[in-house]
Amino acid sequence: MAYAELEARFGRISDLMHVAGIMEWDEAVIMPPAGGKARAQAMGTLSGLIHELRSAPDLEALLEAATADEAPELDPWQRANLAEMVRSFKRATALPRELVEALSRASIEAEQAWRTLRPENDWQRFAPLLEELVQLSRQKAAALGEALGLTPYDALMDAYEPGARAAAIDPIFEELATVLPALTDAVLERQSRQPAIVPRGPFPVAAQKRLAERLMGGVGLDATRARLDVSHHPFCGGVPSDVRITTRYDESDFVSALMGVLHESGHAKYEQGLPERWHRQPVGGARGMAVHESQSLLLEMQVCRGPEFLAHAAPIICEELADAARAQPEAFTLDNLRRLYARVERSYIRVDADELTYPCHVILRYGIERQLIAGTMAVRDIPEAWDAEMQRLLGLSTAGDYRNGCMQDVHWAGAAFGYFPTYTLGALTAAQLYRAALRAEPSIPASIERGDLSGLDGFLREQVWSRASSLTTDGLLREATGQPLGAGAFLEHVRERYLA
Amino acid sequence: MAYAELEARFGRISDLMHVAGIMEWDEAVIMPPAGGKARAQAMGTLSGLIHELRSAPDLEALLEAATADEAPELDPWQRANLAEMVRSFKRATALPRELVEALSRASIEAEQAWRTLRPENDWQRFAPLLEELVQLSRQKAAALGEALGLTPYDALMDAYEPGARAAAIDPIFEELATVLPALTDAVLERQSRQPAIVPRGPFPVAAQKRLAERLMGGVGLDATRARLDVSHHPFCGGVPSDVRITTRYDESDFVSALMGVLHESGHAKYEQGLPERWHRQPVGGARGMAVHESQSLLLEMQVCRGPEFLAHAAPIICEELADAARAQPEAFTLDNLRRLYARVERSYIRVDADELTYPCHVILRYGIERQLIAGTMAVRDIPEAWDAEMQRLLGLSTAGDYRNGCMQDVHWAGAAFGYFPTYTLGALTAAQLYRAALRAEPSIPASIERGDLSGLDGFLREQVWSRASSLTTDGLLREATGQPLGAGAFLEHVRERYLA
Repeated sequence: MAYAELEARFGRISDLMHVAGIMEWDEAVIMPPAGGKARAQAMGTLSGLIHELRSAPDLEALLEAATADEAPELDPWQRANLAEMVRSFKRATALPRELVEALSRASIEAEQAWRTLRPENDWQRFAPLLEELVQLSRQKAAALGEALGLTPYDALMDAYEPGARAAAIDPIFEELATVLPALTDAVLERQSRQPAIVPRGPFPVAAQKRLAERLMGGVGLDATRARLDVSHHPFCGGVPSDVRITTRYDESDFVSALMGVLHESGHAKYEQGLPERWHRQPVGGARGMAVHESQSLLLEMQVCRGPEFLAHAAPIICEELADAARAQPEAFTLDNLRRLYARVERSYIRVDADELTYPCHVILRYGIERQLIAGTMAVRDIPEAWDAEMQRLLGLSTAGDYRNGCMQDVHWAGAAFGYFPTYTLGALTAAQLYRAALRAEPSIPASIERGDLSGLDGFLREQVWSRASSLTTDGLLREATGQPLGAGAFLEHVRERYLA
Repeated sequence: MAYAELEARFGRISDLMHVAGIMEWDEAVIMPPAGGKARAQAMGTLSGLIHELRSAPDLEALLEAATADEAPELDPWQRANLAEMVRSFKRATALPRELVEALSRASIEAEQAWRTLRPENDWQRFAPLLEELVQLSRQKAAALGEALGLTPYDALMDAYEPGARAAAIDPIFEELATVLPALTDAVLERQSRQPAIVPRGPFPVAAQKRLAERLMGGVGLDATRARLDVSHHPFCGGVPSDVRITTRYDESDFVSALMGVLHESGHAKYEQGLPERWHRQPVGGARGMAVHESQSLLLEMQVCRGPEFLAHAAPIICEELADAARAQPEAFTLDNLRRLYARVERSYIRVDADELTYPCHVILRYGIERQLIAGTMAVRDIPEAWDAEMQRLLGLSTAGDYRNGCMQDVHWAGAAFGYFPTYTLGALTAAQLYRAALRAEPSIPASIERGDLSGLDGFLREQVWSRASSLTTDGLLREATGQPLGAGAFLEHVRERYLA
């Protein structure tokens, strides 16, 4: 059986990706500072081996045999698995080795340079590095597009969220770009009438960690299969049987670390909910970055920053941060915590943005990177385009401030073109899924107010987690919500949260 | 060039062993409890890959070509590297796959069973599992011996300490078995006249960790390339650029965790001192387990438990454990700390033994496992032999107490026959090297009293660390000390430390 042999092959690949995932976590969280050079070498060898196995020449015949001769006998999951294997093989073999290596070298160089050039606001020296990455990424997009039958930009997006297509995204992003700026005006005007009181620290790291772990457990993360640690950039890594989430603590502000942990817990619950039977196969993986982000944003934005969850969490927050809560009781009332966790602000920095202004940051980047890949915009014209879009979408000028403008993100320096849209696709998906869950189970908000997320989890487990990659994202969303992706649920949610 | 290709191949193998090393540390220190099953699968795939690369059929021709045609042009390190590659290939290909798999399965089963059967003192159910391991290990020893031109037991020992031979060990162990029992009597008699006062806890974990890290840095461990963490069984893992040592803390006793950390620091300094140019090649690895143990025992037993280092460490101990030291000043005097760190006791348990009685525990096991592998002792006769040797060497009876007798160690349950002697070979090597260092640099004890180990480190770096596996253990020891291995330096050391 070709299919059985393929499962064995992809199982081994999955095992090595398990190892690579834990090692990446180790590098970000654990590795002593001088360990980097030897580690980069070791990880290069491991990635090379994984690539060899994914692009092994005899896979082609096995995939053809399984598809042509065995497909009728396969069950739907096996067929979906086979389709994911074909996708993996096509992506692994689409690019000439020299291009992969040139991109890897150029992006390592640009990323390292970015770390020092960004704080120095040095666009002049960064631009040529970015220019090379754009040239190479255009070649990559063209070659991938040809192999996969996609437009070049779609071929890049497809790596992060399979099935994401610019033609479907454009009208949705246009709607958001039309509606959100005026909506933000209205929210800011309303917010100014009763601003949140910002609690003063210090909030000791140990207390914040205890609080985070208590709420992580409270939202249903299985602690026997997860860890919480500290890293410079918070992330969720590891594997479903051993999920690793990280945060960073700021003793003067507990708000962001706490919601950061709950955000990563959303990612982690998705991983933990993937079906164990398929853990070592391509079909058993999370659907894509947009669906992944939908799970973190659903937990963070729809649930944990919402009034019901905060009613449950407020006494726990006051208990764990008892000293601060006693010193400024007015900052720890439920009303103030709700205001605090729903604050809106127009800002330059994407990673600091609230959910209302975040899509504008993404739409700006999406517009620019599409033109870069299409060859209709030059790297030297990015700052001007950036400034114009910031003014149009957020009413802010970034002229001359590259550091807080077009140099703020690591994504382009790492040649991750096509990644940005997944953030907003995730936010829209989260809103649409949560509304569907509320329709299916109207008691969810009341349960959340008691700290019980089991009703919501039941819906997500059935509709999202247990399905892994057995459906397309579009299929998944239509089955779960009855609709293709749109901006409607998200706009309804923000109007309700910020204007009602 | 065949040799150049071999360096590339073994470099990749070393990269994967780097990954495996960090992953093993992760499993012992970090991994959440439910992560084990998927992890075992992933690590199985990784080990399988490493084995495939080590035993790749085309290595044979490359090794022959390099040996026959290129050896004259290679420098001495390259030649030594080639010899290590041949050794690695021979070991990797000596055993039929079925035997490797049978041994792996049987030892996993026996080790898991041992975890519950030992506390239950259940020799009857453990014996048949051990019987199977002995049978399989005899086959392994015979096959390896044939491939390497060694006697069966030597072939097993050679995996842990290349070059270790029973013919050389026997007279040394006989001398120790003759001298040590009476010497222990004399030491115990002397010790009873002025017993150490045992300090009372609690000694908070945070304070113990601070103390340990201070002394780790003080003995010259490079913290930019090392970490200290907690695990159930203390060990030293990782790679030279990223050494991971672990300990466990007992709040009622700081003595053992502290010396445990210094012991592992000795292992870690050896790893950190290996020559960077050869890190990814077989010749660049530590020579073997006996040499490795010599470095940990040299630091722990020869240096840190000695009167000079304790004169330096005592004020630091009193500073970090200030509450306890204030409460019982009599337990924290330099004299008492010296007595405390040089206590001798006849005990049942090897891992708790002091350096004077430790060799007797090893000699007992060495005698039994040699007979098991030779087929001159049956598994059912182990308890009787154990009891007889305990009485002869340590004056203790273990009749009926398997838990604290022949079931106390994990080694045999893991089929690690041939490992035990390396502990005592390490202790003898440590004493011999330290005496040589003192002859070369008589100011070492005075420097240690000031907390300065640089003189000793200079000797070890030149004579041991920088040489990695470029010499045999015997060659290393003769160059460093002018003598082959013997018991003389060790016996001199214990007489001086415990009777002078």
